[in-house]
Amino acid sequence: MKYCSHCGSTVTVTIPEGDNRPRHVCSSVSCGIIHYQNPNIVAGCLIEHGDRLLLCRRAIEPRYGLWTLPAGFLENGESVEEGARRETREEACAEVEILQLFTIFSLTHINQVYMMFRARLHEPLFSPGEESLDVRLFDESEIPWTELAFPVMNQTLRHYFEDRSKGEFNTHIGAVRAVGEGAGRRIEVEMLQRGDV
Amino acid sequence: MKYCSHCGSTVTVTIPEGDNRPRHVCSSVSCGIIHYQNPNIVAGCLIEHGDRLLLCRRAIEPRYGLWTLPAGFLENGESVEEGARRETREEACAEVEILQLFTIFSLTHINQVYMMFRARLHEPLFSPGEESLDVRLFDESEIPWTELAFPVMNQTLRHYFEDRSKGEFNTHIGAVRAVGEGAGRRIEVEMLQRGDV
Repeated sequence: MKYCSHCGSTVTVTIPEGDNRPRHVCSSVSCGIIHYQNPNIVAGCLIEHGDRLLLCRRAIEPRYGLWTLPAGFLENGESVEEGARRETREEACAEVEILQLFTIFSLTHINQVYMMFRARLHEPLFSPGEESLDVRLFDESEIPWTELAFPVMNQTLRHYFEDRSKGEFNTHIGAVRAVGEGAGRRIEVEMLQRGDV
Repeated sequence: MKYCSHCGSTVTVTIPEGDNRPRHVCSSVSCGIIHYQNPNIVAGCLIEHGDRLLLCRRAIEPRYGLWTLPAGFLENGESVEEGARRETREEACAEVEILQLFTIFSLTHINQVYMMFRARLHEPLFSPGEESLDVRLFDESEIPWTELAFPVMNQTLRHYFEDRSKGEFNTHIGAVRAVGEGAGRRIEVEMLQRGDV
């Protein structure tokens, strides 16, 4: 951010009075607006059809050609569930019944919060949307673990199979952080352990 | 938004190619960047100390003088839990143990998603932060229902007492929408009913 979107003046990075974080602040005395930047929500669905789960093969960057769960940025004016349903419609041309909020992951290194719903596909009606090369149903034994696009989807699928084997689905919340640089870069996952009941 | 924050040119509202929503798009041919606008997350805590709950009286607008639960905008670089804990520290000078994610409400008319955690205050150590006039512990019978600042906090407290009376706390997700204008304006709440188990 270099220019004020409100008045067109230049912007400087400074800690405003009464604040404790650097912000992008308009340098014009007559404007001086503070441009806050905050994390975005990514909403999506983990979709069951019988014993199988629906995955999409990405037709866009990043991670072109890898498999993922339908998900994308929540839009203004929609609820998180509506966003998850819309993304499923756009990427997999599927209408689903949302069952529950399943995983919430803060990706603090890229300022995103993923919210994934467990959902059900009643009829096996789906096809690749514009952002997908392929859409397919996978048994647990067929999941392409080494060809998944994002660690957050890997985590969501792991929690799913773990909960399914226990016969009870819970809501899981945690953080997925990228630590280190270059070849030493690795993903760290920290789940919130539920306190008392 | 009137100017491009990237190059300072004017911005027009138009539907970009391959998109289906109006966006703020830079009018400069050499820039042409799309400025997406997305909902913000508000993170906060519903705090137990024994049978009582902690509320803060607002020292800022909107709703100066009314009672609320500590909450505020999630910042870049922090997880949702960290944001909820920081807001509690800032508004109530309290350190809490987070127990579980309790309510998630999409406020579609103002593009916010509230995420409230159930948390516990082990020692009764708290005091008003800069944005609070007062911080106090309330029994169920003492909750100032008619002096609560925001419908979303009202909803969160209602779910809390309902779950507590059942002896089991769940995660609740829904939407809070303002419908109508002026004197006819009312709040509609729609909860996601959990599907199968």
